[in-house]
Amino acid sequence: MKLATLNDGTRDGQLAVVARDLKTAHIADGIAPTLQAALDDWNFIAPQLATLYADLNANRARRPFDFEPGRCMAPLPRASQLAVGAADGDHVDEAPRMAQCASDDLLAPMGDIVVAHDEWGIDFSAGVAVVTADVAMGATPDDAHRQICLVMLVNEVWLRKLELPQSRPATGFSPVAVTPDELGDAWRDAKVHLPLRTTWNGHLVGQPDAGADMAFDFAQLIAHLARTRNVRAGSIVGSGIVSDRDASRGYGSIAAQRSREVGEHGEAVTQFMRFGDTVRIEMLDEKGRSVLGAIEQKVVRFEP
Amino acid sequence: MKLATLNDGTRDGQLAVVARDLKTAHIADGIAPTLQAALDDWNFIAPQLATLYADLNANRARRPFDFEPGRCMAPLPRASQLAVGAADGDHVDEAPRMAQCASDDLLAPMGDIVVAHDEWGIDFSAGVAVVTADVAMGATPDDAHRQICLVMLVNEVWLRKLELPQSRPATGFSPVAVTPDELGDAWRDAKVHLPLRTTWNGHLVGQPDAGADMAFDFAQLIAHLARTRNVRAGSIVGSGIVSDRDASRGYGSIAAQRSREVGEHGEAVTQFMRFGDTVRIEMLDEKGRSVLGAIEQKVVRFEP
Repeated sequence: MKLATLNDGTRDGQLAVVARDLKTAHIADGIAPTLQAALDDWNFIAPQLATLYADLNANRARRPFDFEPGRCMAPLPRASQLAVGAADGDHVDEAPRMAQCASDDLLAPMGDIVVAHDEWGIDFSAGVAVVTADVAMGATPDDAHRQICLVMLVNEVWLRKLELPQSRPATGFSPVAVTPDELGDAWRDAKVHLPLRTTWNGHLVGQPDAGADMAFDFAQLIAHLARTRNVRAGSIVGSGIVSDRDASRGYGSIAAQRSREVGEHGEAVTQFMRFGDTVRIEMLDEKGRSVLGAIEQKVVRFEP
Repeated sequence: MKLATLNDGTRDGQLAVVARDLKTAHIADGIAPTLQAALDDWNFIAPQLATLYADLNANRARRPFDFEPGRCMAPLPRASQLAVGAADGDHVDEAPRMAQCASDDLLAPMGDIVVAHDEWGIDFSAGVAVVTADVAMGATPDDAHRQICLVMLVNEVWLRKLELPQSRPATGFSPVAVTPDELGDAWRDAKVHLPLRTTWNGHLVGQPDAGADMAFDFAQLIAHLARTRNVRAGSIVGSGIVSDRDASRGYGSIAAQRSREVGEHGEAVTQFMRFGDTVRIEMLDEKGRSVLGAIEQKVVRFEP
């Protein structure tokens, strides 16, 4: 099934079920008020949402309405954990490298990237993220795999010229989160095997396969976190920047492209984003249909 | 006022108001169900909680009951942000150094420190943390100062021989969170000027002043985070390890003591915690009264 969180003026928004074709939606009224509430009791709530989803797809739902991505918040507008892998193909480590990020203010799919200075090295980075149910300490990758509830797209915005944590402003998410079964054969080995298309100011800059060169799969990333503690329901675990060894597939972040340029030509040519620039991140299935809707963000100058 | 979260079997617990002397408490029923709900609408909710607090202290509250720290969860059992300063006195940087930590599973004041192997370098580290209301991007330290709602004690547990993020298992908190006015003169310059007492297996190992050598105050730490993004209500910002240049005040973490030993004798003598070890962290006011209750944790072997 496909889920979204609509902006109703509250901090956590209103949970809605979205039709497979992303054309209509239906409030999850009477089932769960928010996505976090659904995740807190997923085994009980998910089947009820799935029934509504089947009704919506079959035009049997009572009060469907047009689905407008512009009305969406991030599927989880705030979360109790956002941990991101550095599982790119350029490095092969024995264990995943991961980082904790702020998750108190997660951006809507069309939320502006608000930055005070565009000399800060504003960068997008296209990735995939999963949302977990409870994962107990000591979970194996197989255990963790079973606790993956949802898949989303993510734009990890970076300010490359600042230091952590300032270099990581608010992270953007796709309008829709889907259960792994929605991905069909493209979901295997706890990876998403579909191209992740990134356009920058309307120009396609990359369409790497999101699974091909992922050094550690999502089950391994989650199990890595759970080695020393419990991972609780609603945790978001990101892939990190999706990259592809095949340079002809383009790039998913400006930093990756600049690094490639340094390797090939001795210096980076591609400049970072400027005010007014736009980035669009989308995943299409084998028939060219958008699976999760698009992240469409614009860089806007901060006005105090 | 003083607040606590009681374990009622739910993920976020039940908000309660605690008497100044920590002897009685009262459910915040009809005001706010959880601390996060109170923080989401703090300007509206806090005065109502303050009225109940005044009634409880004056023995006018309707249904007071004995306050038992053993029934407490962390004041925020999960939070959307936990950012921790490295604001110790040993390094003077131009800007704070800070790190994001997991906040999906915050430990009760008497929650066991559950670890699979005690060769992982199990360490406590005593600190102070504040909880914020909304802090807008671009906030000055003065702006940030006004958005500090609550003060707590924190035990940042470390597994010193592992890498991040595995080296940071669940973080423990004091049973009670207090508004800064409860600290009286001890709250000044956005620091807590009281000794933070740590005992390890019943032996006092440190009582450094929590404010004396804090390189950056809480207002500066929050403003640092807010330089590139909004900081949302319920964010927890920790001081990092409280240290004191005066070695006679002891230590707040084993790592700090070991580092001192290396400096003085060329090698670290103090070993890390073992299964069965206990740590107690408490802050006493100038009259020797516990301000926030004690963190009392025991190291327990993980049983799958």
